[in-house]
Amino acid sequence: MFNIALLGAGRIGQVHAVNIAAHKETNLYAVVDPNPTNAATLAERYHTKVQTVDEAMNDPAVHGVLIASATDTHADLIELAARKGKAIFCEKPVHLDIARVRDCLTVVKQENVPLFVGFNRRYDPQFRRVKTLAAEGNIGKLESLLIISRDPSPPPADYVRVSGGLFRDMTIHDFDMACFIMGEEPVSVFAQGSNLVDPAIGAAGDIDTAFVVLKFASGAMATIVNSRRSGYGYDQRLELHGEKGVLTAGNVRENMVEQWTDEGCLSAKPEYFFLQRYHAAYAAEWQHFVDVLNGRPPACSGVDGERALNLADKALASLAQGREVAV
Amino acid sequence: MFNIALLGAGRIGQVHAVNIAAHKETNLYAVVDPNPTNAATLAERYHTKVQTVDEAMNDPAVHGVLIASATDTHADLIELAARKGKAIFCEKPVHLDIARVRDCLTVVKQENVPLFVGFNRRYDPQFRRVKTLAAEGNIGKLESLLIISRDPSPPPADYVRVSGGLFRDMTIHDFDMACFIMGEEPVSVFAQGSNLVDPAIGAAGDIDTAFVVLKFASGAMATIVNSRRSGYGYDQRLELHGEKGVLTAGNVRENMVEQWTDEGCLSAKPEYFFLQRYHAAYAAEWQHFVDVLNGRPPACSGVDGERALNLADKALASLAQGREVAV
Amino acid sequence: MFNIALLGAGRIGQVHAVNIAAHKETNLYAVVDPNPTNAATLAERYHTKVQTVDEAMNDPAVHGVLIASATDTHADLIELAARKGKAIFCEKPVHLDIARVRDCLTVVKQENVPLFVGFNRRYDPQFRRVKTLAAEGNIGKLESLLIISRDPSPPPADYVRVSGGLFRDMTIHDFDMACFIMGEEPVSVFAQGSNLVDPAIGAAGDIDTAFVVLKFASGAMATIVNSRRSGYGYDQRLELHGEKGVLTAGNVRENMVEQWTDEGCLSAKPEYFFLQRYHAAYAAEWQHFVDVLNGRPPACSGVDGERALNLADKALASLAQGREVAV
Amino acid sequence: MFNIALLGAGRIGQVHAVNIAAHKETNLYAVVDPNPTNAATLAERYHTKVQTVDEAMNDPAVHGVLIASATDTHADLIELAARKGKAIFCEKPVHLDIARVRDCLTVVKQENVPLFVGFNRRYDPQFRRVKTLAAEGNIGKLESLLIISRDPSPPPADYVRVSGGLFRDMTIHDFDMACFIMGEEPVSVFAQGSNLVDPAIGAAGDIDTAFVVLKFASGAMATIVNSRRSGYGYDQRLELHGEKGVLTAGNVRENMVEQWTDEGCLSAKPEYFFLQRYHAAYAAEWQHFVDVLNGRPPACSGVDGERALNLADKALASLAQGREVAV
Repeated sequence: MFNIALLGAGRIGQVHAVNIAAHKETNLYAVVDPNPTNAATLAERYHTKVQTVDEAMNDPAVHGVLIASATDTHADLIELAARKGKAIFCEKPVHLDIARVRDCLTVVKQENVPLFVGFNRRYDPQFRRVKTLAAEGNIGKLESLLIISRDPSPPPADYVRVSGGLFRDMTIHDFDMACFIMGEEPVSVFAQGSNLVDPAIGAAGDIDTAFVVLKFASGAMATIVNSRRSGYGYDQRLELHGEKGVLTAGNVRENMVEQWTDEGCLSAKPEYFFLQRYHAAYAAEWQHFVDVLNGRPPACSGVDGERALNLADKALASLAQGREVAV
Repeated sequence: MFNIALLGAGRIGQVHAVNIAAHKETNLYAVVDPNPTNAATLAERYHTKVQTVDEAMNDPAVHGVLIASATDTHADLIELAARKGKAIFCEKPVHLDIARVRDCLTVVKQENVPLFVGFNRRYDPQFRRVKTLAAEGNIGKLESLLIISRDPSPPPADYVRVSGGLFRDMTIHDFDMACFIMGEEPVSVFAQGSNLVDPAIGAAGDIDTAFVVLKFASGAMATIVNSRRSGYGYDQRLELHGEKGVLTAGNVRENMVEQWTDEGCLSAKPEYFFLQRYHAAYAAEWQHFVDVLNGRPPACSGVDGERALNLADKALASLAQGREVAV
Repeated sequence: MFNIALLGAGRIGQVHAVNIAAHKETNLYAVVDPNPTNAATLAERYHTKVQTVDEAMNDPAVHGVLIASATDTHADLIELAARKGKAIFCEKPVHLDIARVRDCLTVVKQENVPLFVGFNRRYDPQFRRVKTLAAEGNIGKLESLLIISRDPSPPPADYVRVSGGLFRDMTIHDFDMACFIMGEEPVSVFAQGSNLVDPAIGAAGDIDTAFVVLKFASGAMATIVNSRRSGYGYDQRLELHGEKGVLTAGNVRENMVEQWTDEGCLSAKPEYFFLQRYHAAYAAEWQHFVDVLNGRPPACSGVDGERALNLADKALASLAQGREVAV
Repeated sequence: MFNIALLGAGRIGQVHAVNIAAHKETNLYAVVDPNPTNAATLAERYHTKVQTVDEAMNDPAVHGVLIASATDTHADLIELAARKGKAIFCEKPVHLDIARVRDCLTVVKQENVPLFVGFNRRYDPQFRRVKTLAAEGNIGKLESLLIISRDPSPPPADYVRVSGGLFRDMTIHDFDMACFIMGEEPVSVFAQGSNLVDPAIGAAGDIDTAFVVLKFASGAMATIVNSRRSGYGYDQRLELHGEKGVLTAGNVRENMVEQWTDEGCLSAKPEYFFLQRYHAAYAAEWQHFVDVLNGRPPACSGVDGERALNLADKALASLAQGREVAV
């Protein structure tokens, strides 16, 4: 049984708490949060204790930490946990500044602790199955990938201002997915974008709609379609084309009911947002982290976080310069 | 917080244990099972105690019991719990013999305890939504219902022999669903059946494939399509036709991936069996039982179990006589 | 090149005219219709001539006749054409009275002319493909068939009065389809029905909603779901279950566009009625008749019409008696 | 009744011949083809005459010409027909060289004859319905468009060499579709491409897989996904995203049959290629040309052909330069 200290008792921390507690090999040992009420409420629900960051990091009973705190604390907490020899599960991103990411990963390497970076979508059963079927050769050599990723509704401009921008905040998932699915490194990126959804996003210096084209060393390509607002729920699909055909991963719908009348056939929207759609993915990534606690290397680590952030930075450069940028 | 004694630590008992433990208003207080190892294992997982039937029934701390034991113990346990004033959640069926059911329900009535009978499918989000959309008037007056219910693979003949037969064991769910969806009482039933799937089922005196036609007082009708073996997973659909259109509830699939090649488009099967398909239903019916513990009358009670069993008996008579039988 | 006299210039006659004219082996030689304007209009469009029944029947240049006239003229015209040695394509039904059908088929047999009875649905590409895939053994031994057949809107009561009733007018197609798909003879029929759609239909002595259960010699079964009014276009589906799985034939939709908004996903209805849905079937059955003209025996002949009508009669008896009726 | 001379008796000419002959306002007056056998065969089937180009152009009975001859003859034939005052239906493209296109359109303008350029996909019922629903405001302001267009299998390298390349030969349809659907002018284009399908295509100096990103004046964007080989038939889809949701146009499948077995659900591929998929579109565009013959201005004319070709040229420049190119 591995004892886990959960750093962060907010929305995503609560999702992880369920999985930590439910897993037969992990124990929710302590909850840490700068807000004492949040920490206490969550600890109480799971009959566990509240700790400070220092207590958790210095507690020899803690085998691993799950970092689900504010984005700008991730790198510091990773370094601290690494120096204390804890196994680390960190929500993406490591940091929004790539130099800081690199410094942090150097510490992790020096301390030789396992670091899992939580790109949750890799564990979505739909995308995972596409990867599996492609690996089995069902569509032959991979040629092109299309990722459609639209949020249900735009974030507030205040969030946008500190988010690092669309590419670092939202597209970063798709950059990682593109590399995960294609299984090779991109050599160039082109990005096109517009501010169409909310003028406040434009005023905050960001875009809300983007098309990105990646080229890989083999000549294979990927394109990413992003919008901050779908109008119909959380739209998360991909389509992988190979020499023998295509694999598509569709949305999971709210239900499977159809209403056929004179108006046509009305059926359900995709599940609303990431907590619903990636419900199974969060459990599956926790299972992977348990494997990591048992000695398996993390399948998604700091280098993946760094690669995705670098692609986001390059996409920003491409958007500014109107040209393909080498990676 | 309501303390629940779980009677039965088998497959379905374990499903309920998850929901009892996860619900913020209920506490898995004790596990009861004739097999001491099963009881101890489940109790340990939830840090709770093992009790005997007598201990649980006589323990004033127990607010409610969940009966998930062998079918032939249900009626006795219901009566015992009723006499001890416990709120009762009982897996269907109350009993396979309708006279025994009626006696048991008389005791429940005398003791004035709430009895919820677990027709889980009523809480499936697909079927529930059909009911809701119909109640909102979206398809007008209800005219006919089609229920398709096929198990993934046939049970062993040994099970068949003690099951009460296809109508009492399997179709009983569909009888209840037909009454639940249509919201009125059937006036007649016709049943046609064959032994096509496994000769051992025929040798055990049962059928494995059936079509049943119900007529309701308003003239509306329902038909039920059953097979003990689908060949493609658990097939659980319905289609409700009204004056303005039709509402269909489709299967939930294992995933949303499609593989398009020269062979065509290959997509996933329905979820394998009831533990997968009705996962959400089990949680939802537990929520309803919590409402019952809080004083709401059970929406699905002994009278529903009795009605469905009576329809099964009438269907058997119809099959034997080759004619429509009045209910 | 075969010369065809078309008897009947109404709606369905016009559909056949297109196919006769377009086929490279057939020539629309003459149009016959009791209404001289209808006959002249259709003849003019195809640069062909108008004839009377007698002229067409006695014209040695006429190789075949297509009978698309009023239902009550079919049997007389078949006999006349048979005695003149013409190959005969007759729209279903031969007659609504089974004794008259049998007399007529005796004449056809005596005269030894080929008679094709136009059960158009047998030539629908969807149903045909189900038949083909089943014949290839893809689902193993056939066990049960479900046919859903709903018209878009009810016929006027005046039509109902002379139609022979739901079973002889509408279900007759489904009786034929059941026998065609299952490839064996029914041994019993049970029918249940109601008047739910239009009271005028009830006043005319008919039902408008029906469930029919057929049993075949092998123990396989079929059920037919009928309504005179769907509320969402022409609903023509079937589902054939065998030991290894199920084959389903879905509706063809008006288009493949989906509109996803906050309301959900809105998509198109099935094609409106038989002229749209069975457009391809009419062309395919004409191709078959050309094969008949070239010497191949009709795949759908008088015996099929007689069988379907007999099942309709037995269904009426079943409905009246509330029991399964042997065929 | 308008007399039409059909220039070109090949595959696409034969498709148009059916529609010309079937339309009640047009008469297939003459067939012209450099291959006398082709011309004679087609003329015979429709009981019409063979003419030379000169005869057709100088025949005062000819109201309109349909140019379905080899691509490099289009511009010359358009100019000739324009000078003879004929209404002109020309298969795309006018010419592969944009300077030649402009000269040709100058002549058409001088002679003031109607010219319809046959971008058939504009008349596909799926894409047309997307356009209509968007115009009705169902998804609000248009923001981004995704076009997926994959051929079933690659053309021979010999064809590729004279085709003008992927952008001028294949993507040109998608450039036109993007402008048609968005209803505004692109301001820039970026293209990325690879030779992945067939090395012979690369050896011929072309690519076979491409992603193109268009930006429009309003900030709206479009992306085009192309491949010369799908592996699963003709893949022709689009997805139009607006402020309130998305409109998607899916493929028409070969049939609506599903086979559910232990392997999963196997369903049909998209219709094989353009003759099947755009069958309805060819009839609809002919109806539009009849409207043009009756005085309505062509909805798709030389300017549309020129715009699409210009975008293809700019895409080539973008591919060569690795940057967004202004239009």
